[in-house]
Amino acid sequence: MSKLAVGIIGYGYWGPNLVRNFSASPLTEVVAIYDANPARLEPLRRTHGHLKLVNSIEEFLALRLQAVAIATPVATHAALAERCLEAGLHVVVEKPLAATTVEAQKLVELAARKGRVLMVDHTYLFSNAVRRIKELVDSGELGDLYYVDSVRINLGLFRHDVNVVWDLAPHDLSIVDHVLGGQARSISAWGCAHAQAGIEDTAYVNLDYGDHLLANFHVNWLSPVKVRQMIFAGARKSLIFNELNTTEPIKVYDHGIELGQASEEERHKLLISYRSGDIWSPHIEPGEPLQAMVTHFVECIRGKKTPLSDGQLGLRLVRMLEAATRSIRAQGGRVVLGGGTGSPRAMRPEQFAPTRAGRAAG
Amino acid sequence: MSKLAVGIIGYGYWGPNLVRNFSASPLTEVVAIYDANPARLEPLRRTHGHLKLVNSIEEFLALRLQAVAIATPVATHAALAERCLEAGLHVVVEKPLAATTVEAQKLVELAARKGRVLMVDHTYLFSNAVRRIKELVDSGELGDLYYVDSVRINLGLFRHDVNVVWDLAPHDLSIVDHVLGGQARSISAWGCAHAQAGIEDTAYVNLDYGDHLLANFHVNWLSPVKVRQMIFAGARKSLIFNELNTTEPIKVYDHGIELGQASEEERHKLLISYRSGDIWSPHIEPGEPLQAMVTHFVECIRGKKTPLSDGQLGLRLVRMLEAATRSIRAQGGRVVLGGGTGSPRAMRPEQFAPTRAGRAAG
Amino acid sequence: MSKLAVGIIGYGYWGPNLVRNFSASPLTEVVAIYDANPARLEPLRRTHGHLKLVNSIEEFLALRLQAVAIATPVATHAALAERCLEAGLHVVVEKPLAATTVEAQKLVELAARKGRVLMVDHTYLFSNAVRRIKELVDSGELGDLYYVDSVRINLGLFRHDVNVVWDLAPHDLSIVDHVLGGQARSISAWGCAHAQAGIEDTAYVNLDYGDHLLANFHVNWLSPVKVRQMIFAGARKSLIFNELNTTEPIKVYDHGIELGQASEEERHKLLISYRSGDIWSPHIEPGEPLQAMVTHFVECIRGKKTPLSDGQLGLRLVRMLEAATRSIRAQGGRVVLGGGTGSPRAMRPEQFAPTRAGRAAG
Amino acid sequence: MSKLAVGIIGYGYWGPNLVRNFSASPLTEVVAIYDANPARLEPLRRTHGHLKLVNSIEEFLALRLQAVAIATPVATHAALAERCLEAGLHVVVEKPLAATTVEAQKLVELAARKGRVLMVDHTYLFSNAVRRIKELVDSGELGDLYYVDSVRINLGLFRHDVNVVWDLAPHDLSIVDHVLGGQARSISAWGCAHAQAGIEDTAYVNLDYGDHLLANFHVNWLSPVKVRQMIFAGARKSLIFNELNTTEPIKVYDHGIELGQASEEERHKLLISYRSGDIWSPHIEPGEPLQAMVTHFVECIRGKKTPLSDGQLGLRLVRMLEAATRSIRAQGGRVVLGGGTGSPRAMRPEQFAPTRAGRAAG
Repeated sequence: MSKLAVGIIGYGYWGPNLVRNFSASPLTEVVAIYDANPARLEPLRRTHGHLKLVNSIEEFLALRLQAVAIATPVATHAALAERCLEAGLHVVVEKPLAATTVEAQKLVELAARKGRVLMVDHTYLFSNAVRRIKELVDSGELGDLYYVDSVRINLGLFRHDVNVVWDLAPHDLSIVDHVLGGQARSISAWGCAHAQAGIEDTAYVNLDYGDHLLANFHVNWLSPVKVRQMIFAGARKSLIFNELNTTEPIKVYDHGIELGQASEEERHKLLISYRSGDIWSPHIEPGEPLQAMVTHFVECIRGKKTPLSDGQLGLRLVRMLEAATRSIRAQGGRVVLGGGTGSPRAMRPEQFAPTRAGRAAG
Repeated sequence: MSKLAVGIIGYGYWGPNLVRNFSASPLTEVVAIYDANPARLEPLRRTHGHLKLVNSIEEFLALRLQAVAIATPVATHAALAERCLEAGLHVVVEKPLAATTVEAQKLVELAARKGRVLMVDHTYLFSNAVRRIKELVDSGELGDLYYVDSVRINLGLFRHDVNVVWDLAPHDLSIVDHVLGGQARSISAWGCAHAQAGIEDTAYVNLDYGDHLLANFHVNWLSPVKVRQMIFAGARKSLIFNELNTTEPIKVYDHGIELGQASEEERHKLLISYRSGDIWSPHIEPGEPLQAMVTHFVECIRGKKTPLSDGQLGLRLVRMLEAATRSIRAQGGRVVLGGGTGSPRAMRPEQFAPTRAGRAAG
Repeated sequence: MSKLAVGIIGYGYWGPNLVRNFSASPLTEVVAIYDANPARLEPLRRTHGHLKLVNSIEEFLALRLQAVAIATPVATHAALAERCLEAGLHVVVEKPLAATTVEAQKLVELAARKGRVLMVDHTYLFSNAVRRIKELVDSGELGDLYYVDSVRINLGLFRHDVNVVWDLAPHDLSIVDHVLGGQARSISAWGCAHAQAGIEDTAYVNLDYGDHLLANFHVNWLSPVKVRQMIFAGARKSLIFNELNTTEPIKVYDHGIELGQASEEERHKLLISYRSGDIWSPHIEPGEPLQAMVTHFVECIRGKKTPLSDGQLGLRLVRMLEAATRSIRAQGGRVVLGGGTGSPRAMRPEQFAPTRAGRAAG
Repeated sequence: MSKLAVGIIGYGYWGPNLVRNFSASPLTEVVAIYDANPARLEPLRRTHGHLKLVNSIEEFLALRLQAVAIATPVATHAALAERCLEAGLHVVVEKPLAATTVEAQKLVELAARKGRVLMVDHTYLFSNAVRRIKELVDSGELGDLYYVDSVRINLGLFRHDVNVVWDLAPHDLSIVDHVLGGQARSISAWGCAHAQAGIEDTAYVNLDYGDHLLANFHVNWLSPVKVRQMIFAGARKSLIFNELNTTEPIKVYDHGIELGQASEEERHKLLISYRSGDIWSPHIEPGEPLQAMVTHFVECIRGKKTPLSDGQLGLRLVRMLEAATRSIRAQGGRVVLGGGTGSPRAMRPEQFAPTRAGRAAG
């Protein structure tokens, strides 16, 4: 089967990774790279002399490629993806899909109308670690899920175009959306801008999934240490995904007791011990997630399948990012996430559903 | 100078630590122990035969001791402390001071009227690590403080009388109150009860100190791993207090850059590196904090000094614990913390002060 | 059954732990403590007023106790244990049993003649962790054992009476003797004295068990960090015992491959990965090893059983400690360990058995 | 200045790294790659179509390049380097320089005669971490050096051509040779072959530098965990280089006490604490060591300077590798390292210099 002719738009931070992975794939051939800034393409002339390096979208589209990967600033995603879809290309866009729910919604509809694949590069979904986490959760190994807690902090890239929620939370949101399957009922967030006026660099995001399940993310560009850790806590076992732990990225903790039904003696033992059951760290096969993403993109195009991270997922995430930022600006007020096509609505106090804690207490 | 005659009320989880430390102190002599449950005192008859072991408060007060340490369930603190203060004893109470703001307020007033020391055993304030942290923050070493983030989670003691906020957050609240000095403007919290109906075992608490300073605590009884870590992030340096890291409980991170004013090149370096400046871990002298608490208690009695963790601090903390639980029940709504004697009030949306983020953006 | 009347000799560093554990045991009663230095006993008068505190061995023996625990400097072990055995007491001696093979041998013979229990307090053998390690090795879970590697280093107590091998290696030697079961054929050691003339503070000890099995210990008082880690490497799985890792003291590593028979592809994967199989950390029940030692000592006395760490084991270890020091002084020369009663002999070059490596190569 | 025309010989495990770094350098141009196995070059035809890919040394030399980097199996180093030097090329050889002292000696002499640069790719010497370590040691920051202890173990590549000492110890030897400056007096080693007959996979190597300074390396292909850690212990401070600790590769530990002169009270504190002074982790600039090696190679060629890792250093290391293997086969016997051109000689017992421990004791 002939290789898919692919172009890359945007050669900044992420672009080189896309070029490397689309080049390495036996399924695709990188034909052209387009960046609005000619200086960015300059070093490529020496190392990738055989590629077409172009400076305008018209020139790029004139090449009549089959597919495109877009890795430009968020604000430009929608317009570029729209041009490419209109031109009949299959499109994979860097996360997040677009800068607003409205834009994202339009892209989803356009892709459907044109019969083209629209995918978002939520790379984590293609990692062997997240695949294993989903298997473990789906199999019931952990029991009922209680909460997901994620800490994604570091001394970071201070972006000027988006705040830390738009920069880092898409990772957590995509993983949680994928693993939990369901849809959050409401979102609430706290945040603060320290280093640059108006651009939050420190934030906490809370998702209410109903039924005693909540997810919480701490995202932060002002942390002295780099942390990438997610806890998936269940009634029987809990799982920790620490991607910076190269030897044990996933650990499964058997609680050894039935939480909430511990005897007096078990409670006392917990006080003096650090754990109460076995720990197991399954082996995760090595493999570059971005390569798996490339393979999946081609398979969806060839097999007319719906991508794991399709436009709908991309849209759901943009809606949550919008809601989180709105909540921060409203001092942490809770925002209801409708399933519909509109933007999220802020809750008025009288709309508060009985809280889970409240229900439990009542 | 003769030793202070001390009694201990309550011989459950914490009582033995109090007996051990008041016994070891050259300044105090433990004379009597009172527990309403005679079975709890039984093992003491063999190992501490010389102590008076009593089963009623009347018997206890009849011993005419000089001071008392109370380590009973929270709900009983106020009544017991009141009896002891009325009888003219100096009192140190296990944290938190009382179960309600109203109770705590009454104790503060009573102690003032009787001219007795009322202190709360917020043990952390007497640790060499927290002392060092306060010195570092006060000296300006960190620059302007941006945020405090605390994670205090473990597979824990599932208490039946109070939720996880009342159990664990007093530690964070006392440290932050002590180190930051000022008073939070408002509090907001999310939480959920999984293991026992109506008793939250997972919670996130957020304090707004105004002026771009926020504090956030994750407290949790359902975590597979034990974590005790606080980040104090500043404009120049940041500090991490990890009390489970026995060799390096405090680490000071020099950012190496002016946050928010990083050049393009510095930003790029941050992307590929884990840090940008030196790390320094000051030596912390060993020493049991509870022993330092005992010494401080006696010094305040002898020297008529105000304790570091006096009734006023205890009262402020009870007010914040009340506010946090109220916010959880109101789905995370923000609760204003007045400086006055009343309980905290829930904010109505129209009362929202411009957010820090909002101001920054405006 | 009445409690065993026990006395403690030596109240320095370890003595208080013995007093605490023999007191806490329901099987024993601490009656008397003897220390040649009266100042050491002074603080006991206040806290343990009911105990007999004596200053001479005659006074001590006159009390006609049933058993004794000796925790004095190594040089005094033999004489004190001999007096106690002669007086008909059962004896447990702090490790190592004696200062020389000759002394140790005499104690073993005396105990046999008097029909008394002679035990050495090799505390590790009574820890739940070491019990679990022995079970895992004995069950064949690891496959054939390849090597044991121990690192036991810290910035330490600079003892004046013995070198670091005599101070720290008894722990490793007792664990290896217990877990491996067999007897080493020869020993070799390197070491150096830096801080005090003539007292090695840094040493490496190597045991040859024949059949391709070796054990190596790094013991050190001059390390900036504290490490307590043992690797038990097997053909199928390997085990790491890190007692400073409070949550995961034992980890079992499945190699995922047959070592030495890896395919070209497996080899390549190993190059880029940190591991190749699952890791499992069994839960270890909490429990103080010294308490288990006390219980075992009483059970051996009552049931006329041979202790896990009997005089024979103590003798074997003293022989190895002697051999190690001799090897250090001989620049690392290999010393043959006979099974007999004599001291170890240095090998002459022509006595070198074909090395395991040599045999394999030949 | 025009770029240096470079060829690469050997395109196995390390070759691609050399191609990447010589290509990325602004000082060099990769012109040709030679590998005796044409299959290895096949994938290069697609990605590096502009390079000359050749299958014989004659073809390679006919290109009349200026310099060559050789990354082939150790046994072939000498013959290939000799051909290249004879042809007038400057040569950098993968470590170790050659398979025998005799071969290495000949290469050093040939390079001198031909006036060409002969360098060994001991990559660590070009890392910013090792540069910093040398600065810290040279400045006297650590005080007199007591010992170097290195652990370099992992579940590894089971090489068929050389044992684990030849595979891993060159790293330790090159760092120690570079940082300590002096020359070891003797070497001793223990080792064992488990997975493949005659090829040691587990070894301990001990170097005696005289004057109470020793270096010890544990190298191992059969470890369940990957460790890359070196301790440089000094009289005043000690340093740990842990290259797997991405955030703190170098830590400097202030002992806080004068080792060997600690008071009784200080000794007691050490017993209960994990450390006694501050810890400082200097920031290490990021930067790929192999790129720095390429730059250094070119600078030595252009400026007629002696490389940091010149042939003499390469020769010293081969001599030590030979001596270590000889010692393993002789059951750990000590081998004297002469400074001359010959191979190391085994010590006869009567030649034993008084040991450092012995001297100290005498």
